[in-house]
Amino acid sequence: MGYSRRDFLSAVGVSGGAGALFATMGALGLAPSAEAAAKGTFDPPQPSDFSLTRRSAKKVVILGAGVAGLATAYELGKAGYDCTILEALDRVGGRNWTIRGGDRVTELDGSTQVAKFGDGVYLNAGPARLAQWMVTMDYCRELGVDLEVFTNSNAQAYIYHQSMPAPVRWRTAKADMYGYIAELLSRATDTGALDAALTAQDKERLIAFLSSFGAVGDKASGFRYSGTSRRGYSLNPGAGDQPGTPLGSVPSLSEVLACGVGQRLSFEFGYDQAMLMFQPVGGMDAIPTAFAGKIGRQRIRLRSKVTRITDLRDGVEVEYQDRHGRTQKIRADMCVAAMPPHVLAKTAHNLGTEVQAALATPSVASAGKIGLEYRRRWWETDEDIYGGITATDLDLATIWYPSYGYGTARGLVVGYYNFGAEADAYAALNPADRRRRAIEQGMKIHGAKYRDDLLSSVSVAWKLQPHIEGAWVSWPSRQGAYQLLNEPAGHVYFAGDWLSYMIAWQSGALESARKVVTALHRRVLSTS
Amino acid sequence: MGYSRRDFLSAVGVSGGAGALFATMGALGLAPSAEAAAKGTFDPPQPSDFSLTRRSAKKVVILGAGVAGLATAYELGKAGYDCTILEALDRVGGRNWTIRGGDRVTELDGSTQVAKFGDGVYLNAGPARLAQWMVTMDYCRELGVDLEVFTNSNAQAYIYHQSMPAPVRWRTAKADMYGYIAELLSRATDTGALDAALTAQDKERLIAFLSSFGAVGDKASGFRYSGTSRRGYSLNPGAGDQPGTPLGSVPSLSEVLACGVGQRLSFEFGYDQAMLMFQPVGGMDAIPTAFAGKIGRQRIRLRSKVTRITDLRDGVEVEYQDRHGRTQKIRADMCVAAMPPHVLAKTAHNLGTEVQAALATPSVASAGKIGLEYRRRWWETDEDIYGGITATDLDLATIWYPSYGYGTARGLVVGYYNFGAEADAYAALNPADRRRRAIEQGMKIHGAKYRDDLLSSVSVAWKLQPHIEGAWVSWPSRQGAYQLLNEPAGHVYFAGDWLSYMIAWQSGALESARKVVTALHRRVLSTS
Repeated sequence: MGYSRRDFLSAVGVSGGAGALFATMGALGLAPSAEAAAKGTFDPPQPSDFSLTRRSAKKVVILGAGVAGLATAYELGKAGYDCTILEALDRVGGRNWTIRGGDRVTELDGSTQVAKFGDGVYLNAGPARLAQWMVTMDYCRELGVDLEVFTNSNAQAYIYHQSMPAPVRWRTAKADMYGYIAELLSRATDTGALDAALTAQDKERLIAFLSSFGAVGDKASGFRYSGTSRRGYSLNPGAGDQPGTPLGSVPSLSEVLACGVGQRLSFEFGYDQAMLMFQPVGGMDAIPTAFAGKIGRQRIRLRSKVTRITDLRDGVEVEYQDRHGRTQKIRADMCVAAMPPHVLAKTAHNLGTEVQAALATPSVASAGKIGLEYRRRWWETDEDIYGGITATDLDLATIWYPSYGYGTARGLVVGYYNFGAEADAYAALNPADRRRRAIEQGMKIHGAKYRDDLLSSVSVAWKLQPHIEGAWVSWPSRQGAYQLLNEPAGHVYFAGDWLSYMIAWQSGALESARKVVTALHRRVLSTS
Repeated sequence: MGYSRRDFLSAVGVSGGAGALFATMGALGLAPSAEAAAKGTFDPPQPSDFSLTRRSAKKVVILGAGVAGLATAYELGKAGYDCTILEALDRVGGRNWTIRGGDRVTELDGSTQVAKFGDGVYLNAGPARLAQWMVTMDYCRELGVDLEVFTNSNAQAYIYHQSMPAPVRWRTAKADMYGYIAELLSRATDTGALDAALTAQDKERLIAFLSSFGAVGDKASGFRYSGTSRRGYSLNPGAGDQPGTPLGSVPSLSEVLACGVGQRLSFEFGYDQAMLMFQPVGGMDAIPTAFAGKIGRQRIRLRSKVTRITDLRDGVEVEYQDRHGRTQKIRADMCVAAMPPHVLAKTAHNLGTEVQAALATPSVASAGKIGLEYRRRWWETDEDIYGGITATDLDLATIWYPSYGYGTARGLVVGYYNFGAEADAYAALNPADRRRRAIEQGMKIHGAKYRDDLLSSVSVAWKLQPHIEGAWVSWPSRQGAYQLLNEPAGHVYFAGDWLSYMIAWQSGALESARKVVTALHRRVLSTS
């Protein structure tokens, strides 16, 4: 009835002998424990793999110190592989990039910004959130990266569509939308319109559910939705004779439907977006920083831009330009190319025309963010918004309130996080104009303080980031090119979120790295 | 249309001249800023109040160092009132009680437990969560108490009803319930059953909303709900050829309705319970600790049990038993009794029979909690649950996973937080039997590790806590006794969450304290 034990075991990833396990435990009078998550298995390479097989760890050159490249070096390093990472930027992490005061943001159009953020204030310019089921969480545990909640949803944040005269809090929009659908479905159920689908008992239970779900009236009232304290209060409940004043003037069903707030409500249902979500304390770059520490900084050559990849009969040679502009070569047994496909596609190689065509296949997506540092946390003090995201149909798309530093003095709001054409439009502006536009738009929601209390800002257009040149990619299909690049080309493997079903997530990069590490290690162990 | 500017201004608490303000700002081309929250106004007493009126601050004795008593002393202290707090316990905070390793829990039945928790592990035995709109948040800011998210809802946590063969994750239950109601309402709408309530445009918009809300099929499929990735995956999306395996075997509508999971889903809509919620970093007692620091510890007499309250013609006298068992008296101009009403009702006084009857009017509620410290965070490592609450119809009611220490070694789970008869049933057991029962019940959800990995436990039955003797109270009505006690009895004022519309919340105690402080201060300023 409802949810089966099989579902449960499946949900918690007990595979194979789960039925037998449960039967045994049941016989012992024990409920089954959930001993594994819904994760693929991964056995990291170990030194003993070599001692047992009388083989030895190989030399591997890894192209790119983004999350995939770092994880590859980290996992191979566990078994003693001699890894070297070449990274074009002067930092590790790739798109995992936390910008702090003093950091420079240089874009391909030549503009340079220097962040002026105060101590402890940062912008996660790239990835900013982790879902609990993602392997990224396990790496944080393994690497000792502290976690805190990332506030992906907040009932106190707003929804604002330009057709609306004013923003509305998520809690209010939800109460109204759910109230009206409960009213309508209760009526349809009660009048027998759904009798073909519902038994008498179903009907009774459904109406009981809808009463709680929508806070609607009883049958005598026509199951009428007439507002609820869930919408919020214009004056909060207090002491003595102050029961509070619920927020008034409930819009009509037609009004609620017309303004389109309902379309926002499914965001928080997504497997990858549902709360709770998490972030490393102090900035997302705690992850690459921890990886680099484990790998050893001496294995990572920064400001080393790959210029040619040559697969050889018995290994691979990579040519690169070092930090002094000199051409260098590195020879290894294997290579893992953990760079964006569109950047690899511009790099000379001898991997063949099919590989070249495959690298050029995915289309590159745009995304942009601006960090707005404020002298005071007006979203908390004036609007009781502690974290979360305001969703809009303005070209800024979303405004993010910070998930750290609650109640402190300064704070950083993400003034836009947008994609596609909207990101391209901001990318086309110089940093000052981007800020001007973001402020002008955001004032529609937050008023003059959105401009007046601003201290500083930094914006990033991912298509203009040197050596990255895009936010993420998308594939026309998972056949052909995607499959080809998920196999090695000679001694060259490819890794990255772009070779996973979790594109634009660090977990995709990590899973891809694990897959490549497993394949490479098996090959090394199976060849003499 | 939809949400009016008036609603918005009301929601953010702009009162009075909001319309005019907006018109003015509109004329300037500015959106209105939201300059105040939906909070009652409070002007703390100031020294200048006295210098301007040539009056002087009075001596005030405050009974009880719970949140109401502490806030009273803190606010009066701002203007220079000479406050003394008498507290029967050997700590401040009252029901705001954080239990750490080494703390003793002694109950009225004579049992004593000593907490063995490891460093950094704690149980908030009383209040544990703050809503963003509550004045408690402002006090945290003012007092310098650091905040972090309290994980009141988590899509990864479970719902478990005994009629179900297995627990189900909140995300799965929600996806199924919403999927089916979207299917049903889409069909009723499409077949014209609701034409009396919906225009053609409403219908089109409603069906579009339901498609996104429920992830249901199109009209050709009969708007069929057949599962969605929102339910979760039995094997997560990964790299290469692993798109992931969505969680299978979707239960039927009848099954979903029969198991009653839907009734849980409105919990997270409540104005007081909707996420985001917050907690002080390191334990809820950071709030009373900070208050006590500001007030001055020398003003707080611990282990001082009030034995008699005597209202005098020109002040008040309070008799108490000090830490050495000696009877002491304290004389003051005013008194604020910030003790539970049922404890006050057992204290000798001369405030009259009406006051006595009023103090005995509210009924006292039970609640209990057990903290279970585990040697490893199996909820994170094995089940991908980082915080949140599992809801059950077992007598444990809810299981809470910790909102701090993610990814560390040990952790503390709240094994029950229950009320009423269920709390009384656990209260009647000795601590070892409470633990045994909590473990036996919790194993139905989490299996043998729930028992095997346990390190230590501490349980609290609030009705058995000395000098507190209950979790909170409820009033038969807000007339009569409630109103009477919201006025002073001679020179004695009453304060506490029990005199507010936010019973069982610290914000109720704080608002009540503010109300009493305001009234007392006005009286002092208006009398010669």
